[in-house]
Amino acid sequence: MPNSRLQMLLRGQNLLGYRHYEDEVVRRFVEKAAENGMDVFRVFDALNDIRNLRTSLKAVRATGKHAQGTICYTISPEHTIPAFVTMAEQLVELGCNSICIKDMAGLLKPGPAYELVEGIKTACGDDTVVQVHTHATTGVTLVSLMEAIKAGCDIVDTSISSLSLGPGHNPTESLIEMLEGTGYRTVVDMERVRKVRDYFNKVRPRYAEFLTGFNGVDTDIFRSQIPGGMISNMESQLKQQGAGDRMREVLEEVPSVRRDAGYPPLVTPSSQIVGTQAVFNVLMGRYKVMTGEFADLMLGYYGSTLGEKNPEVIKKAVQHSKKDPITGRPADLLRPEWDQLRADALALNGCNGSDEDVLTYAMFPGVAPKFFTTRSQGPKNLGKEPAKASAKPAAKAASAPAQGQLTEPVSYVVTMNGKSHNVTVAPAG
Amino acid sequence: MPNSRLQMLLRGQNLLGYRHYEDEVVRRFVEKAAENGMDVFRVFDALNDIRNLRTSLKAVRATGKHAQGTICYTISPEHTIPAFVTMAEQLVELGCNSICIKDMAGLLKPGPAYELVEGIKTACGDDTVVQVHTHATTGVTLVSLMEAIKAGCDIVDTSISSLSLGPGHNPTESLIEMLEGTGYRTVVDMERVRKVRDYFNKVRPRYAEFLTGFNGVDTDIFRSQIPGGMISNMESQLKQQGAGDRMREVLEEVPSVRRDAGYPPLVTPSSQIVGTQAVFNVLMGRYKVMTGEFADLMLGYYGSTLGEKNPEVIKKAVQHSKKDPITGRPADLLRPEWDQLRADALALNGCNGSDEDVLTYAMFPGVAPKFFTTRSQGPKNLGKEPAKASAKPAAKAASAPAQGQLTEPVSYVVTMNGKSHNVTVAPAG
Repeated sequence: MPNSRLQMLLRGQNLLGYRHYEDEVVRRFVEKAAENGMDVFRVFDALNDIRNLRTSLKAVRATGKHAQGTICYTISPEHTIPAFVTMAEQLVELGCNSICIKDMAGLLKPGPAYELVEGIKTACGDDTVVQVHTHATTGVTLVSLMEAIKAGCDIVDTSISSLSLGPGHNPTESLIEMLEGTGYRTVVDMERVRKVRDYFNKVRPRYAEFLTGFNGVDTDIFRSQIPGGMISNMESQLKQQGAGDRMREVLEEVPSVRRDAGYPPLVTPSSQIVGTQAVFNVLMGRYKVMTGEFADLMLGYYGSTLGEKNPEVIKKAVQHSKKDPITGRPADLLRPEWDQLRADALALNGCNGSDEDVLTYAMFPGVAPKFFTTRSQGPKNLGKEPAKASAKPAAKAASAPAQGQLTEPVSYVVTMNGKSHNVTVAPAG
Repeated sequence: MPNSRLQMLLRGQNLLGYRHYEDEVVRRFVEKAAENGMDVFRVFDALNDIRNLRTSLKAVRATGKHAQGTICYTISPEHTIPAFVTMAEQLVELGCNSICIKDMAGLLKPGPAYELVEGIKTACGDDTVVQVHTHATTGVTLVSLMEAIKAGCDIVDTSISSLSLGPGHNPTESLIEMLEGTGYRTVVDMERVRKVRDYFNKVRPRYAEFLTGFNGVDTDIFRSQIPGGMISNMESQLKQQGAGDRMREVLEEVPSVRRDAGYPPLVTPSSQIVGTQAVFNVLMGRYKVMTGEFADLMLGYYGSTLGEKNPEVIKKAVQHSKKDPITGRPADLLRPEWDQLRADALALNGCNGSDEDVLTYAMFPGVAPKFFTTRSQGPKNLGKEPAKASAKPAAKAASAPAQGQLTEPVSYVVTMNGKSHNVTVAPAG
């Protein structure tokens, strides 16, 4: 795609994984991604710890590609507009080509959207490129994009309407149309947009099993701070423990756990860590049991948080994990690991010895072995004909009334004892 | 409901029907509606012809109830902000207690929303209550509500999230949350809103057969001006004529027919009249065949339009319908009809002789006879258990792959000739 800029999301020191990688791995990953065609790197850290962003941002700058520094937007007594603006200033100082406000859960309301963009532009200069990324989940964020644009925001993220809304982004077409008569406009060709829409409208049913059925709005997120996906996780954890009726208690526990942990933004992996601990607190008593990940979060092993952590809970984390709290950059504790990763990858069947393969193994140690042995078969198309994909749920729905009643005649060819019969089963009533 | 104000939509001289009623019927309807508890009358005319609103607005004023004058919002070269503001001034002169901007198709964009509300407030005075009613269909109208509020709009229409979006309204909860930090706020109790939401979330599946499956956005409406429901109508008309592939031509014909007819807003019944004529034009040649309704529209029998009508097409309407054009108020041509309606109603089995029954017959002559004979059985609950309601589509979905293939084994107990067999039918491939 020589005429399209490619952009990726990079989890700072986590790259594409869930753990901190040592700096050499970060540098090599960025170099190879740039070499293979990546143009824009949107770099974020789940805790907004700027120290977790430095190495990757510096690596991107070294390649000459676009380094976008990212602020994870969240709501807490600590997450004030001035606090976010300070982070933006730090990102500009690190040489970022642009700033992204990343609103994972659709929490960015119109008023704060205006103030935040205005604050960043005032502090960092009008020529600082600001991009706003929101999700449509709460139903208010197209309004927030309008306000962000009025405050001087340069780029907003949307998606084609046929893949938009619900937990996704706001529809591109609505944004374009919205601007008419406001003094702002896009240079997007609506005819081409329609073609893109129609194409994805057509292929979307093939990927139904990967898509959520939720296309409405959920404003409870403003109260609980909990993204929808996280709620489903917690629900299934509770059900597994036979405590499906205690969801309300868990929802009330989450803000308390988040406060104890210094108000981390709730985004992968902090959302899962906080959510699971809240479930444990409700089921077994507050911090009677602590996950290793929550202890690490309390002790600074994911980085620092904007808020102060509860010292009592830190004490318990030390007891549970037998580790000491740290205040430095977590990756400073890591020893060089590239040679070991390289040796481990090369030992795998099908690994071609390239740096790309070593990095694939480093990012996805569970998935890489199978990928290496099967990639010669070419790319896999995971799309399914809607009829096949929907057969399973449809069969379930059909079997619900079949507990005692059919609703229309169904014909089968049934073979018994080697003989075929045409059998029609019709409703009895 | 002594503590809840009831509001109804009244189609001006059409009341709840599709034809113009004589003034006496209009007066009696309004009197009886007020007497039976209606508090707010939102009165509109499909063509925005103020003469079609006078009698009903005057009748509402006479009852002492709230008379809301309505502007149907649409887009055309004639529908400028000053033109809408002039209509608002006329409505205020008629003694309306408030003005409603009714955006049936979600065409009201944020910029025009601001200008229109600001224009009305400037022309009619700041104390003129302005209410904005939009649909969510195009995805931009929550932004429009935000802008309308900034321009001084007093009331906006939303619906509880569990019944919102798609062709419905914007979610109440999103509007409430949106306002935080903007200097505006509602006095709605979010706890109560949640209860309402949860209730309708629960009962909604029982009414699935009456609900659209469309919950996304459609911005093509801005180009075609055609509401979604109207497109489905035209599609089925085309298919009945074996011309399902000519939809694109019809979509291009609609704006032309609308221009010929003087740019009527597209709302019931003008939307159906214009849409059907566009289908006829594509299938048989432009105005070779003309529906009686379209001829009436061209000749002024529905009222006047803001734009000039195409004189060539008026000529053809005269030829087709053997009627002359009129310029006066259509209802002035009607003779007193109350006594006849009363006599016809009283002749029906089960009619109790009340004015209410006469009005029910006058509004719904097709439905009233059955209603009169069956009402003693009490109100009917049209809700169905989701399993029953979904059984049919589910069975269809399941039978689709069954045309030659099952996707997983299904077990039945089949009884033939008095003998039971356990039969499992498995995929053949």
